[in-house]
Amino acid sequence: MTKPAALTAERILQETEEVLRTHGASRATVMDVARALGVSHGTVYRHFRTKAELREAVTRRWLKNASGALVLIVQEGGESAPDKLRRWLSALFAAKRRKAGEDPQLFATYEGLLGEHSQVVEEHIGELVGQIEEILEQGVARGEFRYPHPDPSISARAVFDATAPFHDPKHAAGWHRSGIETEFSAVLDLVLLGVTVPS
Amino acid sequence: MTKPAALTAERILQETEEVLRTHGASRATVMDVARALGVSHGTVYRHFRTKAELREAVTRRWLKNASGALVLIVQEGGESAPDKLRRWLSALFAAKRRKAGEDPQLFATYEGLLGEHSQVVEEHIGELVGQIEEILEQGVARGEFRYPHPDPSISARAVFDATAPFHDPKHAAGWHRSGIETEFSAVLDLVLLGVTVPS
Repeated sequence: MTKPAALTAERILQETEEVLRTHGASRATVMDVARALGVSHGTVYRHFRTKAELREAVTRRWLKNASGALVLIVQEGGESAPDKLRRWLSALFAAKRRKAGEDPQLFATYEGLLGEHSQVVEEHIGELVGQIEEILEQGVARGEFRYPHPDPSISARAVFDATAPFHDPKHAAGWHRSGIETEFSAVLDLVLLGVTVPS
Repeated sequence: MTKPAALTAERILQETEEVLRTHGASRATVMDVARALGVSHGTVYRHFRTKAELREAVTRRWLKNASGALVLIVQEGGESAPDKLRRWLSALFAAKRRKAGEDPQLFATYEGLLGEHSQVVEEHIGELVGQIEEILEQGVARGEFRYPHPDPSISARAVFDATAPFHDPKHAAGWHRSGIETEFSAVLDLVLLGVTVPS
């Protein structure tokens, strides 16, 4: 028996992802998800009032899953800022590549949803750039980093843009190409040289 | 009267681009182009034996138009290597952006052709990375540049990859966004800091 009391927004979003996985982006309406959960649509409507709201929430959750682990790296102490930036950028690439590789069809479905919800994408990018800015700030405070641009947030955006081939889904088709690891590590070296104070 | 003697490969490719512009990628067969030129298809076949060959040649020509002016920058003397690299990358962005902006439909058509002829795209990228490598080499010889990676060609590829949001057609939708100039110039600053020998 489904217990409506236990029906959290998170549970609905999990099921929405299942509906997306099995039926694609054209489905995943409030009705579809209610049916899959075995509850009335009124129950789902208590959490998400429209199809657009539901789809936006599931897209936000999907992006969040990738960036959640990254914030832990930002907050950790005990390593130099260059090591931390390198580790953070590698973790971002690994997370995006995993998502693209393990279920390419679901990835494509979410790609479509990203197009519908550009505001959600902007927020996600803003969050990631904010995390880079924090790492740069820590490095500047430790005397390890310099800002390539006078504005710290524009500097962080430059680091984000310069590594786009290794996290922007537009490049996903090349992420399992041979030589991609070497290319990524060379860009990391270039970016790190750019932000590191010469010794 | 059309004079068959004057029908060069270049003239056929110009007309092929016109056919692509007005009819899209589904047309532009040898027959279509012969008709547009008012010649027999046998005349065109003397230059291009198949539709695939014709389409590959027009794609190569289109990419070449963008990179032809860039090689002149590489060969010029009289400026520092950092200035030259900055100018070359700016010219690349300007050329790609102009192509995307002045005729978006033709750009989209060529995008489709690029997908059909990945070998041509690889050659084009190889040529551009080769030009970057030459500028880096000049800079290293002048004591202005260092290679971020021990291998000069991998270093050049890193510069190419790090500036992808400003030349890779996958990013074309964002090239007229406000703030793009600032973002580009911040990435240039970052890349230049990465390859420049600290003073």
